[in-house]
Amino acid sequence: MARVYNFSAGPAILPEPVLQQTADEMMNYKGSGMSVAEISHRSDLFVDLLEEAKQDLCELAGIPDNYKILFLQGGASLQFAMVPLNLMRSKKADYILTGSWAVKAAREASRYGDVRILASSEDRNWCYIPDLTGLVIRPDADYVYICENNTIYGTRYTNLPDTQGKTLVSDMSSCLLSEPLDISRYGVIFAGAQKNIGPAGVTLVIIHEDLIPNEVLPGTPTMLSYNTHAVHNSLFNTPPCLAIYMCGLVFKWLLAQGGLETMQKLNQRKAGYLYDYLDQSRLFKGTVDKAARSLMNVPFITGDEAIDRAFVEAAANAGLLNLKGHRSVGGMRASIYNAMPEEGVLALVRFMEQFEKENV
Amino acid sequence: MARVYNFSAGPAILPEPVLQQTADEMMNYKGSGMSVAEISHRSDLFVDLLEEAKQDLCELAGIPDNYKILFLQGGASLQFAMVPLNLMRSKKADYILTGSWAVKAAREASRYGDVRILASSEDRNWCYIPDLTGLVIRPDADYVYICENNTIYGTRYTNLPDTQGKTLVSDMSSCLLSEPLDISRYGVIFAGAQKNIGPAGVTLVIIHEDLIPNEVLPGTPTMLSYNTHAVHNSLFNTPPCLAIYMCGLVFKWLLAQGGLETMQKLNQRKAGYLYDYLDQSRLFKGTVDKAARSLMNVPFITGDEAIDRAFVEAAANAGLLNLKGHRSVGGMRASIYNAMPEEGVLALVRFMEQFEKENV
Repeated sequence: MARVYNFSAGPAILPEPVLQQTADEMMNYKGSGMSVAEISHRSDLFVDLLEEAKQDLCELAGIPDNYKILFLQGGASLQFAMVPLNLMRSKKADYILTGSWAVKAAREASRYGDVRILASSEDRNWCYIPDLTGLVIRPDADYVYICENNTIYGTRYTNLPDTQGKTLVSDMSSCLLSEPLDISRYGVIFAGAQKNIGPAGVTLVIIHEDLIPNEVLPGTPTMLSYNTHAVHNSLFNTPPCLAIYMCGLVFKWLLAQGGLETMQKLNQRKAGYLYDYLDQSRLFKGTVDKAARSLMNVPFITGDEAIDRAFVEAAANAGLLNLKGHRSVGGMRASIYNAMPEEGVLALVRFMEQFEKENV
Repeated sequence: MARVYNFSAGPAILPEPVLQQTADEMMNYKGSGMSVAEISHRSDLFVDLLEEAKQDLCELAGIPDNYKILFLQGGASLQFAMVPLNLMRSKKADYILTGSWAVKAAREASRYGDVRILASSEDRNWCYIPDLTGLVIRPDADYVYICENNTIYGTRYTNLPDTQGKTLVSDMSSCLLSEPLDISRYGVIFAGAQKNIGPAGVTLVIIHEDLIPNEVLPGTPTMLSYNTHAVHNSLFNTPPCLAIYMCGLVFKWLLAQGGLETMQKLNQRKAGYLYDYLDQSRLFKGTVDKAARSLMNVPFITGDEAIDRAFVEAAANAGLLNLKGHRSVGGMRASIYNAMPEEGVLALVRFMEQFEKENV
C-alpha cells in the first residue's frame, strides 16, 4: 500500500519530507558516519542540533528571550504532576475543565494542594468551552490551568481567560504550532510532541524564566524539577535525541511552509471544508458547538452506530485511515494536524459526500 | 564519510541492520502506508509490535512469567527516584557505591528514607568493585542497590552480592543483554536503552510482580508508580513508540546472532583483544583492577594528557570515533557494546599498536 491519509489523533501524521529526511540520514547524519540515534548528547553534532531546534522554534512561535524551551520526557501526563510540584507555592490552583485531560490534570494537582474548579463544560459532555467572563479566580491562586484544544471532544479556546494577573498554564498538546500565538500571555505551555510537533517520546515545555523555581515542593524528584532541566539546557541526563531531531526537522518544515500564519490559513481552510460540509449534510453532523470548534480535531456522528462503523471501515478501504471516534464521543473523528495535506481533507469530504448519497 | 567505528559510551552504536530496517520502514511500516512514528499506540499494529518486543526480550533474557517488562521514559535518572518511591516501604535501603551513578541514585533515595552505604570503591576513584563478603545488610532494609556495570569507570560486578533474602535492585544500563543473566536473582532491573538496547528515550524496567506496589510513598506522581504502567501494559499514556520499535528490532537482531550466550562469547573475545594488548603495552594502560574489568567500557590512559589528546584526534581521523575518556578518569575509553563488530575492536587495537610504535 502506498502512503495513506492518516487521521489519527496521535501519534499522528508527520510531514512526508520530515520522514524522508529521517530515513535518508538514519545511517549517516551530516556525513558523520553515525546515525542521530548513535551520537552522544554531549557531542557538538547533537548540541548544535538542539540549539538549532530551539532557535527555529523561537522564530516560528515568537518566543521571547525570557522564556526557556525544555525538551522533556513523560508526555503531558507527567506535566500534570510537574506543574503543581513546581508552581504550587501557595498550594492553591484554579482549573477550568473542558474534558478528560483537564480533569486528569486537576486530579493530579489536587494531590499536592487545593484545586478549585473555575468552570466546566461537563454538563454537555464537553462539547463547548465554558463562558470565561466573570471567572472568580482566587487572589492567592498560584496559577490558572486550561487545556487549550481538547483532542477527544474537538473543542478549542478561541479566547484565553483573563487570569487577573495570575500565571496561565496551558496544555497545548494538540494545537501548539497550528496558528500564531502570543507567548507572553502564558506562564507555562506544554505539549506532548506526538500530534503537531514530532514523534511520541518528547514533551515540549515553554516556561517563563521567573516561574522556574529554585525550590520545588518537598519530595519532588530531581528529574521533575523544571530547574534541573533549565539549568542543564535539557541535557541533565540523556534526552530522547532521535525524537528531538525529528521535532527540529518539523520546525524547519513549518518555517519553509511560511510559518504559523500560513499554517493558520491552511488549517482554517482545511477545517472549513469539513465543517461546511457537516453543516449541510443530511447524514453526518458535528458534535461540538460552533463557537468552540477545533481546527485540529473534528468529531462527527451519524447518530446510528452501525452506519458509523460501516463508514469507518469503508473509509479505511479507500485509504482514509483512523477515523474511528474516541469511545467517549463515539462516531468518527478526523484529526487534521499541520501535516495533513489539504488534498487529504478534500478526499475525506468527497468520500463523505459519496457515502451520504449511498446511505440516505 | 562512510560509516565509522563509534566507541561512544551512549547514546552508542546500534546494529547496522536495525538502522537500515528503521530507515526502510520510516515511510511505510508493514505496508500500512504509515510510519511507526505515525501510528496510534492503541492500534493493533503498535500493540502487536509491543507484544512481540516483550516476547522476544523474554526469550532472549529468560524472563520468567512472574516478572513484568515495562517500557518507560526519563532514563535511569528517573529510576533513581522511582525505585525508592515504589519500594521504600520501611524507609530503609542499602546501597553499594561503585561510581557516580550509584552515588546519584543513593542521594536521590536519601530524600525519601534512610540510606545506608554498605560498601564503596571511592577510595581509589572507583577502579574496582568492593569486596562483597560479609556485607552487613539491615534486616529491615527494603532493598539492596547496585550499579552492575559502571560506564564511566569501566568496572563490572562478576558476582552479585548475597542480599540475604532482600530485594536486589540493579542499574544495568550499560550491560543488560551483553551476556546471559539469572533474572530470578533480581527484584528490579532497569536500563536506559541508549547503550545496548536501542535509541535514547526509552527505559527498560524488568520487575518481579510481587514488588509492584498498590501503595507508593505519599505524593508520588501517578506517572512514577510502577503499578500505573504495569496495569496498563506500558500504555497508560503515549509511550515512545519509535524508540520501542527500534528496541524490538535490536531484540530480533540479538536472537538472530544466537542470543546472549553468543553475545557473551563475542563480548569476551572483543574485550580480550583490548585488555590483552593493554597488559603488554609500553604506552597505554588500563585503569581498572583486573578482577573488575567491564566487557562493555574499557578506559585506558598513557599517563600524558598531551599524548592522550593526540591519540584521540589521530584515531578519529582514522575512523575510530568518540574515544575520549570521561573527565572523571581522563585519557581514553572504548565502549564496545553488542553492536560494535569484532573488526571494529581489531581495528582499534591495530591502530593503538601503530600509534605506540610511533610514540614510544
